[in-house]
Amino acid sequence: MYAETLTKLIDELKKLPGIGPKSAQRLAFYILQSSAGDVEKLVVAITEAKGKLTHCSVCFNITDMNPCKICENSSRDHSSLCIVAEPKDLVAIERSGEYKGKYHVLGGRISPLDGLGPENLRIKELLERLAKDNFTEIILANSPTAEGEATNIYLTRLIRPLGIKLTRVAYGLPVGADMDYADEATMSKAFEGRREV
Amino acid sequence: MYAETLTKLIDELKKLPGIGPKSAQRLAFYILQSSAGDVEKLVVAITEAKGKLTHCSVCFNITDMNPCKICENSSRDHSSLCIVAEPKDLVAIERSGEYKGKYHVLGGRISPLDGLGPENLRIKELLERLAKDNFTEIILANSPTAEGEATNIYLTRLIRPLGIKLTRVAYGLPVGADMDYADEATMSKAFEGRREV
Repeated sequence: MYAETLTKLIDELKKLPGIGPKSAQRLAFYILQSSAGDVEKLVVAITEAKGKLTHCSVCFNITDMNPCKICENSSRDHSSLCIVAEPKDLVAIERSGEYKGKYHVLGGRISPLDGLGPENLRIKELLERLAKDNFTEIILANSPTAEGEATNIYLTRLIRPLGIKLTRVAYGLPVGADMDYADEATMSKAFEGRREV
Repeated sequence: MYAETLTKLIDELKKLPGIGPKSAQRLAFYILQSSAGDVEKLVVAITEAKGKLTHCSVCFNITDMNPCKICENSSRDHSSLCIVAEPKDLVAIERSGEYKGKYHVLGGRISPLDGLGPENLRIKELLERLAKDNFTEIILANSPTAEGEATNIYLTRLIRPLGIKLTRVAYGLPVGADMDYADEATMSKAFEGRREV
């Protein structure tokens, strides 16, 4: 019903995750009424990101320089390695400013239902790093979900024999949350992980 | 925290309507892990749409040929004109297959709160068409909202003196809807517009 060019744009936008037919239509009309300069900016951003970004050959974070800024930064703690599933988890940790060591991005979590086993994650590369570099602490920073826990268990079995100190981030009540809104699983983690004051 | 190129892409995506920081991040990662061919298709679709699409000089629908397919189609009813606010309303009507006449796209609705008055709509162009072509019926097809009603009232005052038959689409219960879920306004429209059976 729409002009063919418009239908094609709506179809391409519909392929994006979380974009249904109505959102695709709204985005398409937004793009049509935007200035040529703004559309150009969007197109350049997509093209450049696709062209320039790559995985860091050391930690597998997404980067436009290789090795990435974090791996190259000599002022960071070289003795500590934090294992995360995805680049966005790394970014969430960096935002907190709490951690100053190195990272290893697995590229996902073990999830048999999605056909993702340990062989799909960057575990071989992790073991190579552990053999080469002298880390004194390894921190597991996976989301407390079934997949995150499965990944933690797998990594624990793999790393513990190496004799390196192995920790995981704390699970418990999120800061600012109302006690009576916490779900049962979080509440039991909060009790399980209680500390003396 | 992200590589600069990635931050730039996320920032551009965040400007799109209905796309918040989390969605922008998800879209950016989706684009990064898509094949180069798929990204190319998206970029071409955006660029072509922006470059080729224009408003039909007769009815102001969005089109890649001028006049548009509907205006050019000689098998359509030339005596009937349906007035809609936006191209997407036209598409919704075309989908129903019920209407076979011509269209006029106003480009919006009267909405003083958004600073949109009759002077911002294609009303001058509408009057020119009405003076030139011999329409025997004009159908107002605005959404039954405050803005749609304001536009209908304005157009009615303008068109009625011309002596052309003027109708508006029926408001009432949507087909397939459960009676007891209908809101009060729809229910009163349904009663107001009741017909003898």
